[in-house]
Amino acid sequence: MADDWANSAGGETAGVDLHLELAGEGSPRAQLMSALRDAIRSGRLASGTRLPPYRTLAADLGIARNTAAAAYAELVEEGWLTAQQGSGTRVADRATPAAVDRKGAAARRNPRRVLHDLQPSSPNAAAFPRTDWAASTRRSLAAAPNDAFGVGDPRGRVELRRTVAEYLSRARGVRAEPERIIICSGFAHGLQLLCDVLNGPMAMEAYGLDFYRDILHDKWIESIPVSVDHRGAVVDELVGTDARAVLLTPAHQYPTGGPLHPERRAAVVDWIRASGAVLLEDDYDGEFRYDRQPVGALQGLDPDRIVYLGSVSKSLSPALRLGWMVLPDSLIDDVLSAKGSREMWAGVVTQLTFADFLSSGAYDRHLRRTRATYRRRRDLLVRMLAQRAPHIRVSGIAAGLHAVLELPDGTEDSTLHAARSLGLALDGLRRYRHPAAPMPHRDGLVVGYGTPSDHGFGPALEALCRALSGR
Amino acid sequence: MADDWANSAGGETAGVDLHLELAGEGSPRAQLMSALRDAIRSGRLASGTRLPPYRTLAADLGIARNTAAAAYAELVEEGWLTAQQGSGTRVADRATPAAVDRKGAAARRNPRRVLHDLQPSSPNAAAFPRTDWAASTRRSLAAAPNDAFGVGDPRGRVELRRTVAEYLSRARGVRAEPERIIICSGFAHGLQLLCDVLNGPMAMEAYGLDFYRDILHDKWIESIPVSVDHRGAVVDELVGTDARAVLLTPAHQYPTGGPLHPERRAAVVDWIRASGAVLLEDDYDGEFRYDRQPVGALQGLDPDRIVYLGSVSKSLSPALRLGWMVLPDSLIDDVLSAKGSREMWAGVVTQLTFADFLSSGAYDRHLRRTRATYRRRRDLLVRMLAQRAPHIRVSGIAAGLHAVLELPDGTEDSTLHAARSLGLALDGLRRYRHPAAPMPHRDGLVVGYGTPSDHGFGPALEALCRALSGR
Repeated sequence: MADDWANSAGGETAGVDLHLELAGEGSPRAQLMSALRDAIRSGRLASGTRLPPYRTLAADLGIARNTAAAAYAELVEEGWLTAQQGSGTRVADRATPAAVDRKGAAARRNPRRVLHDLQPSSPNAAAFPRTDWAASTRRSLAAAPNDAFGVGDPRGRVELRRTVAEYLSRARGVRAEPERIIICSGFAHGLQLLCDVLNGPMAMEAYGLDFYRDILHDKWIESIPVSVDHRGAVVDELVGTDARAVLLTPAHQYPTGGPLHPERRAAVVDWIRASGAVLLEDDYDGEFRYDRQPVGALQGLDPDRIVYLGSVSKSLSPALRLGWMVLPDSLIDDVLSAKGSREMWAGVVTQLTFADFLSSGAYDRHLRRTRATYRRRRDLLVRMLAQRAPHIRVSGIAAGLHAVLELPDGTEDSTLHAARSLGLALDGLRRYRHPAAPMPHRDGLVVGYGTPSDHGFGPALEALCRALSGR
Repeated sequence: MADDWANSAGGETAGVDLHLELAGEGSPRAQLMSALRDAIRSGRLASGTRLPPYRTLAADLGIARNTAAAAYAELVEEGWLTAQQGSGTRVADRATPAAVDRKGAAARRNPRRVLHDLQPSSPNAAAFPRTDWAASTRRSLAAAPNDAFGVGDPRGRVELRRTVAEYLSRARGVRAEPERIIICSGFAHGLQLLCDVLNGPMAMEAYGLDFYRDILHDKWIESIPVSVDHRGAVVDELVGTDARAVLLTPAHQYPTGGPLHPERRAAVVDWIRASGAVLLEDDYDGEFRYDRQPVGALQGLDPDRIVYLGSVSKSLSPALRLGWMVLPDSLIDDVLSAKGSREMWAGVVTQLTFADFLSSGAYDRHLRRTRATYRRRRDLLVRMLAQRAPHIRVSGIAAGLHAVLELPDGTEDSTLHAARSLGLALDGLRRYRHPAAPMPHRDGLVVGYGTPSDHGFGPALEALCRALSGR
């Protein structure tokens, strides 16, 4: 990320004195990216040239720091620039852009052969409840009225909205009536719709998924990063911003792993009330807590200002493309209008099947089974690390499908490199970092323990310990 | 539509002399809409005031006619203006906007009780092959590899792309390899992705679905309407435009019903070769032809410049949200990048199920069955009209799920009104008309014969005949 070196000791050493003119069409960022590409293409900026810190450049050009940081980060991804801790952002050796796949996280990852997959992307695919799912399909198809196969309701099938409302209320403390639920095809779809509806900048946690940031970027919404620590997002930072919305992962900060502290839960609700902003609660893995009962959703504190978002992506499979939003009354019409009566939404058979899967008790059984598996896997991870890599601390609560391993300063890249050479795919914490994060980076790994098969998990942990201990 | 009166005799009578200043952000259209809304809100334009013809206004403001026409049409839909044949566009009596639901076609339609549904929106919902679908789900879930339930391939499951390639090649003459297919969640999704990828204006048929136009509008792509007649789109009109793409329904122009004439098929291929434009072939009902074998897809004539789009929305159900694109090599990477690795796409169980449904022969059986039903229904419609409303001509080929009934000039609105009072829901041709269509409007009805149940079809036809004969 472009700002890494800005936090490093020598980061403020000035790079080349760079005269750029912003002109042409598009946002300041697009103009800056275009000017930088032109300068590189023309040879005015030679390979290896160190660029000025983004803060300096932003001040010179009279643009927002965010904008300069984002332009650097994007040109790094496109292959025009490289960013290295301690050495700043430089023009890449062979500054021709790689095939751009901004959103294609998978494609950006290790292209070598993956022997062990500890990427925190998905639940255990082998645990998908095939037989129960097929039975729910059969039952729900037999019971469905004919109009289920007509044009359809953009809110989603009422059978599903009813059972989801009942489930969320029971399991997550959400104040959910079927009329306030809109079915969507996963969190990303929900966030896109909300971006169409909400105006103004959106605050988000300084560590989070890059594709959330991509969605805001594509929708021309400025993102304002908020620091995170072991008590979750530092919501005090919201005061004084012009954010009109804030996106949080209160149950289990993604990926750093802290739950939002009760005082901060109260404080953020105070802030949305005072500022009139909307809170988006991303409850991506609220079902998976291993040390105690899960904390209820924040949404119950102020259903008129909080949008609750959930999906089956962590609990069943991200490939089902099924999620839901519980909306304040004031947003329902706008979100439906943004969705459109003919836009894509979750397929009706998937909707009907999940409604049966929920109401028949199969979902609760599935959750109990997988919760036990993930808990065992997490315990094993913690135990093995204590034995084999005692210098590594596992941070965050015992929850979800991933853990964060704190690394000694300056070792994230080398550890990832060691992992890669062992055929082990996992993520460094840096890729989750917002380009304009207001806090220093701490090196770390994000280890997903959901993805491997049962027999593959032991060998994957073994490889992880080797990568961490350098042996 | 805003331009109706421009084609009527008194249409060019000047309306109020209107001084508007375009300013602020957004496209010229957005600026014009905002200026008109302000003028109405402030009372400067009183209720009932007749606006100048859009051509005059466009010339005055130095903006495109298209833009002015579209702004008028949109303000009509929002409830600020009214447009009536012969009386021009006027400020609405109570010019406060209705709850805006631009894309919510269903909501815009008759809010009264629908006793008979002849809207051309969907196939016969009662014919959905529930048992076969459940069997395909069971078989395909049992056979799927574990990785099917992981993050998934944004191109879609390879099992499905293989069977769809085989099917399209066999049934529709499409040159389709699995590598060039991308699964999407229906035509609208495919068009949205292509809008992200293609630059410049897109030509489209002057009669077509309003939500296609909405998609272009939302993506800031100018649409250029091309006339249609009984030989399909008048593709000669493309020459000299700056269109970079053209969207056509060659097998069965939607909704007017002509197939694209062989000479025009050749001419449009010549045009895309000469201009470098891309052709989007919307093969929405290519499986349903009753008088002969269906004409093969246009795509086979130049697979390097033609994108083929299809779905199960007419053949099985629009609620399944499943479709496909066959792309030229040159577009695949861009479309995948636009889709994104985490964006919504058709759910994996739906994909696997349809792959089995296709390869097991169940799809062909289903098509044979429904083709026979729709053919009988169309024949009955034609026969009853010949007896009961002999002044009405059914135009277009014997194909698809709808027929166009040509009405005497000036009777479309009154016929729709008569239909509505009988509890009969159907569409007038005017709602399909592009706001800037370069051809005069001919009154007509679009009658869908797919939607009713078997026992409901006779009474629906009876009501239609009564509405047409005024008795």
